[in-house]
Amino acid sequence: MFTQSKAVPLKQVSINNHFWSHYTKLVREVVIPYQWEALNDRISDAEPSYAIQNFRIAAGLAQGEFGGMVFQDSDIAKWLEAVGYSLALTPDPHLEQLADEVIDIIALAQQPDGYLNTYFTLKEPGKRWTNLFDCHELYCAGHMIEAAVAYYQATGKRKLLDVMCRYADLIDSVFGLEAGKIKAYDGHQEIELALIKLYHVTGAAKYLNLSKYFIDERGVAPSYLLQEFEKRGRITHWQPGIVVSTPNLIYTQSHLPVREQKDAVGHAVRAVYMYSAMADLAILTEDQELKESCLRLWKSMVHKQMYITGGIGTTHHGEAFTFDYDLPNDTIYAETCASIGLIFFAQRMLQLEVKSEYADVMERALYNNVIGSMSLDGKHYFYVNPLEVWPQASESNPSRHHVKAVRQKWFGCSCCPPNVARLIASLAEYIYSSNEDTIYTHLYIGGEATIELKNNQIQLQQESNYPWDGSIKFIVSPQNSQNFTLAFRIPGWSDRIKLHVNGELIENLKIVNGYVLINRIWNDGDTVLLDLPMTVQLIQANPSVRSNAGKAAIQRGPLVYCLEEIDNGQQLASISLATNSKLTAAFDANLLGGIVVIEADASVEAAEDWSEELYRPLKKNVAPLRIKAIPYYLWGNRAEPGEMSVWIRTV
Amino acid sequence: MFTQSKAVPLKQVSINNHFWSHYTKLVREVVIPYQWEALNDRISDAEPSYAIQNFRIAAGLAQGEFGGMVFQDSDIAKWLEAVGYSLALTPDPHLEQLADEVIDIIALAQQPDGYLNTYFTLKEPGKRWTNLFDCHELYCAGHMIEAAVAYYQATGKRKLLDVMCRYADLIDSVFGLEAGKIKAYDGHQEIELALIKLYHVTGAAKYLNLSKYFIDERGVAPSYLLQEFEKRGRITHWQPGIVVSTPNLIYTQSHLPVREQKDAVGHAVRAVYMYSAMADLAILTEDQELKESCLRLWKSMVHKQMYITGGIGTTHHGEAFTFDYDLPNDTIYAETCASIGLIFFAQRMLQLEVKSEYADVMERALYNNVIGSMSLDGKHYFYVNPLEVWPQASESNPSRHHVKAVRQKWFGCSCCPPNVARLIASLAEYIYSSNEDTIYTHLYIGGEATIELKNNQIQLQQESNYPWDGSIKFIVSPQNSQNFTLAFRIPGWSDRIKLHVNGELIENLKIVNGYVLINRIWNDGDTVLLDLPMTVQLIQANPSVRSNAGKAAIQRGPLVYCLEEIDNGQQLASISLATNSKLTAAFDANLLGGIVVIEADASVEAAEDWSEELYRPLKKNVAPLRIKAIPYYLWGNRAEPGEMSVWIRTV
Repeated sequence: MFTQSKAVPLKQVSINNHFWSHYTKLVREVVIPYQWEALNDRISDAEPSYAIQNFRIAAGLAQGEFGGMVFQDSDIAKWLEAVGYSLALTPDPHLEQLADEVIDIIALAQQPDGYLNTYFTLKEPGKRWTNLFDCHELYCAGHMIEAAVAYYQATGKRKLLDVMCRYADLIDSVFGLEAGKIKAYDGHQEIELALIKLYHVTGAAKYLNLSKYFIDERGVAPSYLLQEFEKRGRITHWQPGIVVSTPNLIYTQSHLPVREQKDAVGHAVRAVYMYSAMADLAILTEDQELKESCLRLWKSMVHKQMYITGGIGTTHHGEAFTFDYDLPNDTIYAETCASIGLIFFAQRMLQLEVKSEYADVMERALYNNVIGSMSLDGKHYFYVNPLEVWPQASESNPSRHHVKAVRQKWFGCSCCPPNVARLIASLAEYIYSSNEDTIYTHLYIGGEATIELKNNQIQLQQESNYPWDGSIKFIVSPQNSQNFTLAFRIPGWSDRIKLHVNGELIENLKIVNGYVLINRIWNDGDTVLLDLPMTVQLIQANPSVRSNAGKAAIQRGPLVYCLEEIDNGQQLASISLATNSKLTAAFDANLLGGIVVIEADASVEAAEDWSEELYRPLKKNVAPLRIKAIPYYLWGNRAEPGEMSVWIRTV
Repeated sequence: MFTQSKAVPLKQVSINNHFWSHYTKLVREVVIPYQWEALNDRISDAEPSYAIQNFRIAAGLAQGEFGGMVFQDSDIAKWLEAVGYSLALTPDPHLEQLADEVIDIIALAQQPDGYLNTYFTLKEPGKRWTNLFDCHELYCAGHMIEAAVAYYQATGKRKLLDVMCRYADLIDSVFGLEAGKIKAYDGHQEIELALIKLYHVTGAAKYLNLSKYFIDERGVAPSYLLQEFEKRGRITHWQPGIVVSTPNLIYTQSHLPVREQKDAVGHAVRAVYMYSAMADLAILTEDQELKESCLRLWKSMVHKQMYITGGIGTTHHGEAFTFDYDLPNDTIYAETCASIGLIFFAQRMLQLEVKSEYADVMERALYNNVIGSMSLDGKHYFYVNPLEVWPQASESNPSRHHVKAVRQKWFGCSCCPPNVARLIASLAEYIYSSNEDTIYTHLYIGGEATIELKNNQIQLQQESNYPWDGSIKFIVSPQNSQNFTLAFRIPGWSDRIKLHVNGELIENLKIVNGYVLINRIWNDGDTVLLDLPMTVQLIQANPSVRSNAGKAAIQRGPLVYCLEEIDNGQQLASISLATNSKLTAAFDANLLGGIVVIEADASVEAAEDWSEELYRPLKKNVAPLRIKAIPYYLWGNRAEPGEMSVWIRTV
């Protein structure tokens, strides 16, 4: 069987869990309304978005000029997509009305032939499809398709879906191998995965085929993107008026056909969006070669180029991968969107083959990089997610200007905030997958799910205080008592698990690909108790990662921890931890909304005996220091900007 | 007394020492001829210089267009200056004839009114003095003045000196506070220190005054450089045709009057050239305020922003300082020219006040950063001098592209190679200084010196195998037996010294400001034996330097050591050294021309038990490793590019 399981759709899963209910509520009640204000340029002291205004102008409802980035439309799309997911789980007539109004404006902005892009409509009307390398035309289309699908699935309303089908049909008539079409693809992958979604809701094979065309055509020599660049006169959208050097095809993963790509390279977000579509197509077209490409690129990325927080992208130059084991903590990029894309890719790989590593990575990126990118108040965001921060360096060393020590209200290029919103709003569909006779639990997020097996429907209730506690209870309610399998992921971080069914400890667990499989006749009210002992661990990096030599990170369950200046003083690099330190975990109800804090006895270089000298003969002089670590995702939520570090020196 | 001592001039000091004779000979026999070939674009596979050709075209001796950087003239100037110093000590009729021919061309390129700059003469004839911020016009003039002075002092020939006096007079008529003059200064300081030299050889106060004017006017509000920028239409030489954002005055140290500057900021080479002129002016005009500025800026630079190799400049963005204690080893800049300028500044500070710290820094920069920038064959150069190199990162991580893992044959911007040549060729004048009754020895470089005291002339012969051995012999030959003082610097790295006069151990040494002072009646043939025990030291950095936390560098005498991959394997970061390790120094006659190598028992993380994983629970598994360190200045002189590291983890 080519496909091992399918995700359980959003509408069939609810989230009811202390940790995540906070986030889904935050997204619903704060993030979506806040971002609506941002998209309408009503956040004081923040960079304006122009996104709604652009659509209003293109719709003939306002006067003015296009503002913001060439891909500004996509911010509205991602916001609408988040609204769709939110409405799917929690109806909200006021929000739905607002969304309908936005959709009305979008529909008005659509051109008679179906074209929909406010930048080209307002600013360069005659220049459609002339700068695919720079201008994100199909990328914006992709995001709006995703929004249309989500909104349709949530509300049953077809208006935006119809708009986007018309646009997709126009795109289909413009791009392809057939005579008279442009043999091209976008500089920023995104439409490929969106078209798969459009195929799923419409059943129209043309969208699947168009996606497959874009993936297959990419990187074919001679390069369309280079020919287009020459034809344009070697100019770029980004530096108007000057002739520039030949663009780097690696940046857009168009240097080789995707089936020949061996390493994860180039712009990280483009890469993972593309890999996600490749995995989708491998599933749908049962394409073994494409599957092998996905496996290879997954390994290159996850085994050699991923930060411990699930961040990817080492350098801000092109927001890109560099090379194996190059994972500096200070000049890092680790864009929020890239980790979100990594989760998309992991979810699809899980459908291709159920292996716990995919869910492990999904969990790692989710609990660390992604939620860490947003402040607890839901109104401030990181674009870059560093593992080491020295605020003065962020300010005064240009190599670290991109690393902000505090979350920002909004960005000129604000791709990340609505991306977080849509991921959290749709989180429920990442928890389970199933096939004819097995239900897989990938994430330990409490709530209720309704899952169809062959000839049966199962209610599965999950209860836990995860990620603070590893004890997870499942209550199984099949429509009919029947033999099937429940499969629970054993996280990579858990060294031993215990499992009880109806109170009875199960010995000799059957474990396949990192999942414990319980096959039996399940009756209404059966319970499974899964115990994942959450010991505090010191983690080390492969010695090929030069940046982490001699260092360890603290991890407990899925959460990576960090030290902050506010708890541990300045010069965090002066702290060292014995490798056999006793690490104590304790719940602190008063800190940051209630979290498990980790403490340990460590040492710190005593600074007081230093005078003005910069160098001196080595004189060991360390003082004891009780250190306190908090979950990485919560750093920067207190007081003034301060130092932060994930990796701690060990002795 | 405002001035405590004066440098003993080049012509009165010869170098005769195993270590340095190699370098002075190399400069004479290889570097100067090689650079002559480079300046004539005759080095294959190297970036062309165009420098000589530009002068030939400007002189009417060839046809063509200006090539290379706007400051390309300065490469010829520095080369000629090096030739001057070399000829001062070692006559060479062939080289002198060649230099005379070059000077003839330069003279022909001078315009009727005295103006001399091939870029503006050939490429922008009407644009003189319209872009002082970018175009290095006075910088180039400064370098050619330095060349003229050096060549005149070496050969007594006035031709280039006359050319440059005419040009300096033109400059004097253009710039100044008087009505009708431009109230400006150059974007790249250099002419200020050059005019002091011109004043010294000509005795003409106008040159001293012009230098003082440039220094005093710099940074006065409203900023001339900003006004000029607006007047030009906000364009820059470096990105033709586009309007750019307001230039950063900090980059050119013109953000404040120099007397108000507190921190060493901006482009490092500009800074130290300016500080050198400031120290010169403080000496010559007995300007206490200027002296205090120099003291303050020295401290900011040397106590807070200097690498252990004497490198300065933390970032390649603007080749600049960043802020206190920000000294990353991998994304470093530490340009060769900046360390050379630091030596210029230190030498002048030593004249203002004799304190061993100045000479310590001079020695540190000289023996590590500066000579390390040139290969042993004299034909390959570093521009950036890193303390940690991972060749793959230099190639594949854009934040480290500027850090080359191998020395280059030449550069498009080739300021550094001729700068090294002129420094080494003039090294003899950094060794001693004197006043009426004291001779100070700052550097332990063997050879002979003739030094004038009040009513006496002293021959001082220095013999040693420094820097390999700390035993230094001086033979004193005064014209007349007389009471005077010999002062010998006690290097910062030496913890205890012994001193014998005529074989007799001197107890209770009188030490003032880091110099041991021997005051007695000196007779012909008296000997002083100074013993500086060269123990191998582990050096640590101030804990505020986050990059070096938990690390140590190996130093022996003035030499900083490093590990190279060729001796110690890959993944140098995996190596750790116990702080109480026994470090063994041994002379290896067969390695790199004969050097003292340092070995120690260390540990290395065993890599063999790692599989494909990137992270895992910490498992200490170290293997013993005998490490071998070589002097930093010799790294990259063997085989293929490999890893290199100065700082070693300690446990």
